[in-house]
Amino acid sequence: MDKFAVLGCGVVGSGVVELFEKNKTLIEKRCGKELEMAYILDLRDFPDRPYGNKVIKSIDTILADPEVKVVAECMGGVEPAFTFVKACLEKGKSVASSNKELVAEKGDILLQTAKAHNCNFFFEASVGGAIPIIRPLHKCLAANDFTAIAGILNGTTNFILNKMIKENMDFSTALALSQEKGYAEKDPTADVEGHDACRKICILSSLAFGKHVYPASVHTKGIREVELKDVELCSKLGLAIKLIARVQRLENGHILPTVMPMAVEEDNLLSHVNGVYNAVMVRGDGIGKAMFYGRGAGKFPTASAVLGDMIEEVQLEGTNPAQMWENVHSADFIEDFSAFTAKRYIRTTAADVSILTEVFGELDDMTVSTDDDETVCIVSRPMNAAMMNAAKKQLAQKGIQLLSEYPILVS
Amino acid sequence: MDKFAVLGCGVVGSGVVELFEKNKTLIEKRCGKELEMAYILDLRDFPDRPYGNKVIKSIDTILADPEVKVVAECMGGVEPAFTFVKACLEKGKSVASSNKELVAEKGDILLQTAKAHNCNFFFEASVGGAIPIIRPLHKCLAANDFTAIAGILNGTTNFILNKMIKENMDFSTALALSQEKGYAEKDPTADVEGHDACRKICILSSLAFGKHVYPASVHTKGIREVELKDVELCSKLGLAIKLIARVQRLENGHILPTVMPMAVEEDNLLSHVNGVYNAVMVRGDGIGKAMFYGRGAGKFPTASAVLGDMIEEVQLEGTNPAQMWENVHSADFIEDFSAFTAKRYIRTTAADVSILTEVFGELDDMTVSTDDDETVCIVSRPMNAAMMNAAKKQLAQKGIQLLSEYPILVS
Repeated sequence: MDKFAVLGCGVVGSGVVELFEKNKTLIEKRCGKELEMAYILDLRDFPDRPYGNKVIKSIDTILADPEVKVVAECMGGVEPAFTFVKACLEKGKSVASSNKELVAEKGDILLQTAKAHNCNFFFEASVGGAIPIIRPLHKCLAANDFTAIAGILNGTTNFILNKMIKENMDFSTALALSQEKGYAEKDPTADVEGHDACRKICILSSLAFGKHVYPASVHTKGIREVELKDVELCSKLGLAIKLIARVQRLENGHILPTVMPMAVEEDNLLSHVNGVYNAVMVRGDGIGKAMFYGRGAGKFPTASAVLGDMIEEVQLEGTNPAQMWENVHSADFIEDFSAFTAKRYIRTTAADVSILTEVFGELDDMTVSTDDDETVCIVSRPMNAAMMNAAKKQLAQKGIQLLSEYPILVS
Repeated sequence: MDKFAVLGCGVVGSGVVELFEKNKTLIEKRCGKELEMAYILDLRDFPDRPYGNKVIKSIDTILADPEVKVVAECMGGVEPAFTFVKACLEKGKSVASSNKELVAEKGDILLQTAKAHNCNFFFEASVGGAIPIIRPLHKCLAANDFTAIAGILNGTTNFILNKMIKENMDFSTALALSQEKGYAEKDPTADVEGHDACRKICILSSLAFGKHVYPASVHTKGIREVELKDVELCSKLGLAIKLIARVQRLENGHILPTVMPMAVEEDNLLSHVNGVYNAVMVRGDGIGKAMFYGRGAGKFPTASAVLGDMIEEVQLEGTNPAQMWENVHSADFIEDFSAFTAKRYIRTTAADVSILTEVFGELDDMTVSTDDDETVCIVSRPMNAAMMNAAKKQLAQKGIQLLSEYPILVS
């Protein structure tokens, strides 16, 4: 029999405890071993819950118990989670974490610590909630040379954009609704500004390319400025505006991670990912492309991923077959955002397309003229930020404003 | 350094060799060990290929070499694959197989043999080609009590149905095209009659429910009888006819695996899976639902999955953390097809819906009357086969023919 402990009894932590109790027989069968939920570390007490008597206040209790082989970390935030997790790993206790901030900031150190102490640090729950993506990338697709990953990695912003697309709700109303439904926090900054999606693409990039990618080196733009008008006009062109977290490998071997709203074409499955669902598209030289889809957050979906990691950690006790990623200086392998190019959806005050063709070169066939004398079209030539700025100036000289623009995701 | 061998140098086997050579550095880094492609077992010779000198004719060479730790089985068919794989496992050599027929018929025995000899038998490539599905089900989702799996598991039939849906091509023309493109074999029986999809749902069912499900106990119907007319009429109702391999757990705890053409609603992502792509939707009590999507076949996609298994087998050398499924008498846990119920799309010679309402009870709002005085509608009440037969007789008494019917997949 192995004991396990849960750090943090919030939404995810209590989910781990409850899903374990519900499926205990099945989980123990799959582990090949009996399991005992021994400790729950939390500052609060939970006298009314069936597991209230398991609550402890000090990590030292867990560290001092040699029978605790596996620890679920569901605290969130970098500290004290980092200190606690590192201490557990140093005692040879494997850790399963749902904490994307921790993994994005300290993943390399924790993976090295696990390796050094012959235990495992897994974090399937840190990206895409219930969606199996870490292990598939890391194991199933390990023979691939990856070229790109693109995903909808934040359920709250996808819910908001979906309400804008399907129900013509404006951003503020949709945000308020998502707060009412409990998807968005009172302070929705981390979701709305793209920070949450950024941490997740850092983790996927680090895994796929083997070098730690820090959030600070990712160009990140949220959805606060997305106007309902553009959402509607995009629909007419067969495009859906989604917050896309993406990393691509460029020809020079560098990688370019980005988080920003992009226009997604209808024939790309990502455009059909609705509500709070997440999805990740992966490209590699062996597989071509593959996609993973599911609930990106929520109590039981996330708990399912944490428990899946814990089950494998029990099975692997005493071995560390996982790989690591290196910590190298970012500038050596992360390209600056100025190198990003894409076809663009643009909306301007031009009365017709002739001037736009002059400035942008070839346009896609589809063009929409709006009621208020604006023209919307798709620029066929891949443009980078500098080219867009130059075009904007040229337009201004002709008295035309560039009202909005979205890069188009290549499927 | 570990040596590995490849059994069978057809499409998949040669893909394994070539993808390994292409990504050798990266694969060895991920393995944490150098690898040597030592032997290729095939009846043919390949003097013109760079690896021609590795070709051998007897499995004994591989069995006798203690340095061969991992074997890729890409032969197909039950024999001699079964004998060879079993012999390798008995020597403690781990095997990665792409052979769905082998796994569906002999998976339980081979898993037990691997366990007994402390090595591993993996088969990620046997279902869904490049799509990571075996390991996600088995590892990432191991904390879930599964309730259903539904997938598009055969690329050839999906290609054919897609041509019927998108280009109004009839079945025979689409089949001929798929043969021309090399998707369908000269004898397309295994694909078209659903046998291939059947083997795959057997494997997924065995994994999810822990008991070996044999192909013979699965109700299997192919797409040969799908008429273009129904495909077109379904489109008008927002439905797409797809060959769906599915298993559901019933309230009595038994499971009901089926392979048959079903009508899939627009808001189900499976309806948007086009061309030769495959996808699998999984339902569990923790995750809600998750979907996996990618190339279901092809040289490098399948090779990618085989190599992914081999990499993990190298990492796991000397341990067997995998679980098994039991071999129990089918009748004890597989429900007869007569228990299958579903809402139905029906097409009849009825001039209007009033008679249909009389016979079937409530109908969904959407009804289509065709040019040739047929009526198409959706029966709201879940019907089983016996109920459908009774309804058919009732209609016949009124001089009305039931021309076709498709069960509707619940998303």
